[in-house]
Amino acid sequence: MRVIGIDPGLRNLGWGVIETEGTRISHVANGVLHGEGSALAERLLALFEGLSEVVARHAPDAAAVEQTFVNRDGAGTLKLGQARGVAMLVPARAGIPVGEYAPNQVKKTVVGVGHADKRQIAHMVRLQLPGVEIAGPDAADALAIALTHAHFSRAGGKLEEALRRASA
Amino acid sequence: MRVIGIDPGLRNLGWGVIETEGTRISHVANGVLHGEGSALAERLLALFEGLSEVVARHAPDAAAVEQTFVNRDGAGTLKLGQARGVAMLVPARAGIPVGEYAPNQVKKTVVGVGHADKRQIAHMVRLQLPGVEIAGPDAADALAIALTHAHFSRAGGKLEEALRRASA
Repeated sequence: MRVIGIDPGLRNLGWGVIETEGTRISHVANGVLHGEGSALAERLLALFEGLSEVVARHAPDAAAVEQTFVNRDGAGTLKLGQARGVAMLVPARAGIPVGEYAPNQVKKTVVGVGHADKRQIAHMVRLQLPGVEIAGPDAADALAIALTHAHFSRAGGKLEEALRRASA
Repeated sequence: MRVIGIDPGLRNLGWGVIETEGTRISHVANGVLHGEGSALAERLLALFEGLSEVVARHAPDAAAVEQTFVNRDGAGTLKLGQARGVAMLVPARAGIPVGEYAPNQVKKTVVGVGHADKRQIAHMVRLQLPGVEIAGPDAADALAIALTHAHFSRAGGKLEEALRRASA
């Protein structure tokens, strides 16, 4: 299964693609897209086109997006919401299921604690994807989200398998 | 000039298209799109596809979107931001310039005062677009936004003309 993780932001949108095969996880690609342009609509279009290109190129089977903090100021939340809308739209348009994970769920899964900082996340992502070159902190976060989705999908898969066996 | 006004919302996205020719303004079409589906990504996709279809059908030259209140709760602001991101993306993708107007700017332009309620807005929209059938309060707001854009474009056009004459 190929998973794209997305860390949405209007200025910097991180993305990271991983491949899972049984218990083996490998890195495919990662990067950061920039919402360039002076007008908001232009910036959203740049993110949409960039992310559409990434999804077309790497053809993920599943997408995972970080659930956003809403405890910041209203204007910041609105901006983030706009970028997040585009981030969720792109995989949905490609027919890819989109999962959502809260930031502390991602941290707990990847680092082991819910209050890890960005440096710790990048460190654990590197440990789990040996040799990976990370395009920046937003790309590290995106890879952490993809790893979280892979973890929960596998756990879900195991559960499904156990239920199937139990009912057989 | 043909203008589409958009009142973004995740559940109800209002849209309204008007046509201006000199000082004459006429109604073209209006409606409300619903972000249907259980998952957020599905709902955003429904809005994206619905609005893309509206833009393709009515081929506006300009778009105007309401600037959103950010003084509500964080979760509500985030939801609205996500719908608004999609609402601004669709005309941008079609190469149409997207203007933004604050709610009290729209009210002042269409009703004459900044604190008008929805009923007053619908009433003034009906007066300015005789015979119009309005699909709902969100569509009335969208038509009001389109009227505001037409008003400011005309004012801008007059200013440009005056400047051109002055420099001739």
